[in-house]
Order: sequence, then structure tokens, then C-alpha cells
Amino acid sequence: MSNNCNAGNKTYSQTLDLVKGKVEMVHGSGGKAMAQLIDELFLKAFSNKWLEQMNDQACFQLPAGNVVMATDSHVISPLFFPGGDIGCLSVHGTVNDVAMSGAVPKYLSAGFILEEGYPLADLQKIVTSMAQAAEDAGVHIVTGDTKVVERGKGDGCFISTTGIGVVPEGISMGAERVSVGDKIIVSGSLGDHGVAIMSLRENLTFETTIESDTQSLNDLVASMVDVVPDIHCLRDPTRGGLSATLNEIAQQSNVGMQIYETQLPIKPQVNAACEFLGLDPLFVANEGKLVAFCPPDKADQLLAAMRQHPKGKDAAIIGEVFEDDLNFVQMETAFGGNRMVDWINGEQLPRIC
Amino acid sequence: MSNNCNAGNKTYSQTLDLVKGKVEMVHGSGGKAMAQLIDELFLKAFSNKWLEQMNDQACFQLPAGNVVMATDSHVISPLFFPGGDIGCLSVHGTVNDVAMSGAVPKYLSAGFILEEGYPLADLQKIVTSMAQAAEDAGVHIVTGDTKVVERGKGDGCFISTTGIGVVPEGISMGAERVSVGDKIIVSGSLGDHGVAIMSLRENLTFETTIESDTQSLNDLVASMVDVVPDIHCLRDPTRGGLSATLNEIAQQSNVGMQIYETQLPIKPQVNAACEFLGLDPLFVANEGKLVAFCPPDKADQLLAAMRQHPKGKDAAIIGEVFEDDLNFVQMETAFGGNRMVDWINGEQLPRIC
Repeated sequence: MSNNCNAGNKTYSQTLDLVKGKVEMVHGSGGKAMAQLIDELFLKAFSNKWLEQMNDQACFQLPAGNVVMATDSHVISPLFFPGGDIGCLSVHGTVNDVAMSGAVPKYLSAGFILEEGYPLADLQKIVTSMAQAAEDAGVHIVTGDTKVVERGKGDGCFISTTGIGVVPEGISMGAERVSVGDKIIVSGSLGDHGVAIMSLRENLTFETTIESDTQSLNDLVASMVDVVPDIHCLRDPTRGGLSATLNEIAQQSNVGMQIYETQLPIKPQVNAACEFLGLDPLFVANEGKLVAFCPPDKADQLLAAMRQHPKGKDAAIIGEVFEDDLNFVQMETAFGGNRMVDWINGEQLPRIC
Repeated sequence: MSNNCNAGNKTYSQTLDLVKGKVEMVHGSGGKAMAQLIDELFLKAFSNKWLEQMNDQACFQLPAGNVVMATDSHVISPLFFPGGDIGCLSVHGTVNDVAMSGAVPKYLSAGFILEEGYPLADLQKIVTSMAQAAEDAGVHIVTGDTKVVERGKGDGCFISTTGIGVVPEGISMGAERVSVGDKIIVSGSLGDHGVAIMSLRENLTFETTIESDTQSLNDLVASMVDVVPDIHCLRDPTRGGLSATLNEIAQQSNVGMQIYETQLPIKPQVNAACEFLGLDPLFVANEGKLVAFCPPDKADQLLAAMRQHPKGKDAAIIGEVFEDDLNFVQMETAFGGNRMVDWINGEQLPRIC
């Protein structure tokens, strides 16, 4: 961890009280208390040979070639929610941003901004969840930093993660490669994450709890690239939902898009909750889904490969790319009409990730 | 920038009001408003070909070999201070953590956590300062993320930066290499940063304003490595000051250290302010200084090289490493006595970086 915060083989007069203890200002000040927090909480959870180098940075070998870097700061509220918490979310989010380039995610850094008074027991749950998510995704949290702010100057726990990945030889994805004729495929049901969070905030209960879809997608991406190396573009439709992702890519690649409402995989309970909450599932954040653009002659093959993977079993071709200088995204509705799918301008879902 | 937040060639109905405008919740929600903030503020300041790839991650080439990754979250208060601001500090801090391994810093990511209501004019100053600091250090801010939290859930602006650097062939530094007999060299005056911040908070004025020493040290490190490639260890004594750094390394390398009070470069006004504020300059944070450990027969040569560099002109040999299973750091005082230089346990300087 960074900034003089490793204690090496230090012993402390008392072990950290992980049951009733709270984050104190002193845990961020570079002295013994910070070293103890790192030793007894972070290092125990994230244990690996890079962190154990105990320097202010991690050193590792990378093969020559294209390297990818992505970062996300996580401020989700509440910190714990059905299907996950800020800990695993902060790993999934950055792993996915790296993976959407076709790269294999390898190493993560993690920066914590903690609010004075936050329960250490909750922090330990979050850190344990991060460690598990990292292990599941096959990545290592190799360096980090901890800061503490006064009560009322933060909100429990914010986590910034940055990821590094290596692009396999011959893989080149990006919005600029999206072309007229490309098929648009989503990997599964839309809107689960945002609706799970909003239902919790609004204290809504449904027959079945709606769970966040937060998960790492690097394994799904690897199995997709295996079958169709020439995928043009991958993107995870997080904040702003599918609508923001499609509009963004349409503009970046100067094309239009047509999608079909009847093809969109949306769970009935998510649809119902959206109606109740006044949300449109197209604008709702996902944290474990991706959108793929691929040449039309490869689409069926790619779809089949996705459906064979547990994280892509509900994958569906939802539309295609066409020529349009105005870069409109349009949707054929279930009733056969056509409507514009515009970006939202206003605030729909604050602090969703 | 990450998470569907690039607008490409989008045009907006009105340009962002960078004079009287404020950060709004909508600037973090993944829609058009966020895209506009990124386009008109971040992309303008950080303009480079990686950001302009407009994907959720940056892709760059690295040579095969050892790569270094470091991260820091910045929560300094106040955000603007004599000698700098959170913007340049967030670049310097991470550039220095990378450089302390002997690596050449190359690429940075930046994650912003903004508080609703924060003036856009101040945010622009911060971002401009980051861009200038990155240019000065020869690094590029290649990817980023922006989140917004409600009023009272943050404190204006927090910035998390992560840096990637490449270790030159033949360079290998780390606490584990520090050996009995090594000389301890500091690159310049101690305590400037912490005292500048504390004086500002306490509203103290002195004849000359005490300025933070915040600066990138990668150029100084490069010129040091040029002359003495076999430096054993470099560390920047930030939070916890020189005391925390020496104690940390003493324990990591299982040695003792002896330093000499008369050799410590401390500015008279910093000493005076420390007396007034009840601080010990050994515990006060620096943001533009380093401590080097090198073989005794190379110390004079290294010191000479450092003094030739503007950022090392006040460098001094302040002590040496000796055998001690208890890993004590001791200081011969100006009066000829010897005292322990222990870690602080309590909170001396909250939110100093």
C-alpha cells in the first residue's frame, strides 16, 4: 500500500477490533495505526507476493505488446445490496472495463476513501468481497492506498480501482471499428443492477428479490474471442444503460442503429419494477452485461458461443447497425412502431455504481 | 473516460458555464450532461491520443520487462494551498510513487469524486493544474472516471490517480536491498508541505509564506540512477514524514538507523512554524522530497549528482544504516545526546494529501 503505510513484521499492542471498532482519523495518517489497519485487514484479505513486496508500488512482468488501463471510482449507495456490495462491484467494474477491449485483466490497484466512524466490521466485509471477486476473476490487487475523511465529509466508503490488462495478439476492438451491417448482441437481461438498487432505496419488495447482476465478464469475453476473434467492439452498458452505450457508439463510429423491443431480454419482475418506479429499462445501469458488435456473418456463431457460457445463456441479437449521418438509435416497439432511443439528459439514477 | 461517458462529436444546446456553473448530480449519471462535462472540461485539459480513443479504457504499447503500478487517493484539505493544489498534488504523488522504484512513469489514470454544488470554475483550475503537472513530468493522463455525490457526502473534490511506469534494464530497488553500512540521503528540506497546509488551516502568517514542496521527482531520480544505478532503495517521505519512512524501511529490511539532527535540512521558518504549532518536522509530510539508501562508497558521488539537479540542490547525507535486531531509528541531537525516532501513533496531520 502506498505512502509509508506498510508495517512489515511490526507487532501491535492490541489487535484491531474488527467487531466493534470504527475507522478513526488516525487510520489515514501514515503512522502505526494506519500500518495496523493495512496489516490486519487489507494485507490479510488481498495476500499476494506483490503486496508483500511492501514498497509504495507493485512491480510485475508484462509481455511486450498492447497494454490496457481502465479506472473507476465507486460511490454506490447503499454499500450493500441484493447480489453484491461496493467491494465486489469495484472489482467487477474495472475488470469489465479492461475486458471490453478484448484484453486479459491482470492487476488491480485499490484506493479507499473512508469516513471517520465507519464500522471496521463492514469494511472487512467489503474487503473480503473484493478479495473473492478478484480471485474469481483471476486478477490480483497488487497495490493500494487508504485515506480517511472526517464524519460528514464522505459517505462510509468510496473505492477507486484501476486495472491493467494485456491484449492478446491479433485482437483489436474499439468503437471506431463498428460498421454498417454489424449485428448488436447483448449478453443477457437488462436493467437488473439499477432496479435492484432503486428497489432497495425505495424499500420496494417484490415476490422475488431483484438482484444486481454485478459480475466479472472477462471469462465470457475470452470464450467469445476464442470463437470470433474479429468482434468489432465490446462495451458494458453501465451508467446510462443500453441507451447511453448505443448512442455513444453510434456517434463515435458515425452510424445509426436499429434495435427491436421484442428481442430485448428483460426479466418480467424488472419490467414491473421499472413501471412502478417510472424508469425505462433501456436507461437503467447494468453491472454484469455486455453489448457486442460483430460482422453479420459471424453473429450466429458468436451468439451460440455466448449462450454456451453461464454468463451469456440469455444472450440475444437485438439489432443492427445502419448508415445514418445523424447517428440516431431507433427501436421498433412491440406494437410495430418506431421510436427514438435518445440519451437521458436528466438525473435518473444517482450513485448507482 | 470510463462508463459510457464520451460524447464523440456531440454538440450541446449550451456550453458548460465554467464561470458560475456548479457540479450537479446529473454530471455523474452517464447521460448527456456527463458527456458534456468530460468533453468541455476534462478532454480539453488532458487532450491526448489515448483519451481520444474514446473507449472505456486506454490502450498503449509497453516494452517487455518490469512494469510498476502505484496508486494514491487524494483528499487534501483545503484544495488550494501555497505552492499547489489537489490537482498537481494528485499527479506528483503518483508519479513519485512510481519513480521511487527507479521506474520511468508513463501513464496515469484519474478518478474524480465530486460533491454536488462544487464550482466548475474551481474544478477547471484543478484539472488545468493536473494537466500542467502531467506535462511537466512527461506523463499522460490516458483514462479516467467521474462520479458525483450529494452535498454533505463528499468534500468538494477527491482525486484518485494510478500510475504505470517501466523499470529500466538493470535497475532493482526496494526496502529489502537496504544493507548495513548504507548511507541515508535526503534530497532537500523537510516538512515544507505539512507545515504549509497546517499554517493555512491555522491561519498563521509568517514573514515569508511557507510553500508546499509538491513536485514530481522522476527527473531527479533519472539523473541519480544515471550516476549510481545501484541505489538500494528510494522512498518519498509523505504522510508520517521522515520518521515513518525510516521506521518502515528499518523494519522491512531488519536493520537499525542512525541519523544526525545537525545534518537535517530544515528551513528556519519551517522549524519556527513547527515550534509554534507543536509539530516535530520529522513527522511532517513532504510531497517533493525523497530519501535514498546507497552503498557507502557511492554516497558522495550520488550526493554530488543530486546537488547538481535543481530538485536536489539542498540534498544532504543525514545518517547511516547499522545492525540492530530491534530495528530502532535513533537520532544524535544537536546537543550530542541520542534519542529514539519512533512512529507517531496518534493523529498529527489529518488530510495532508
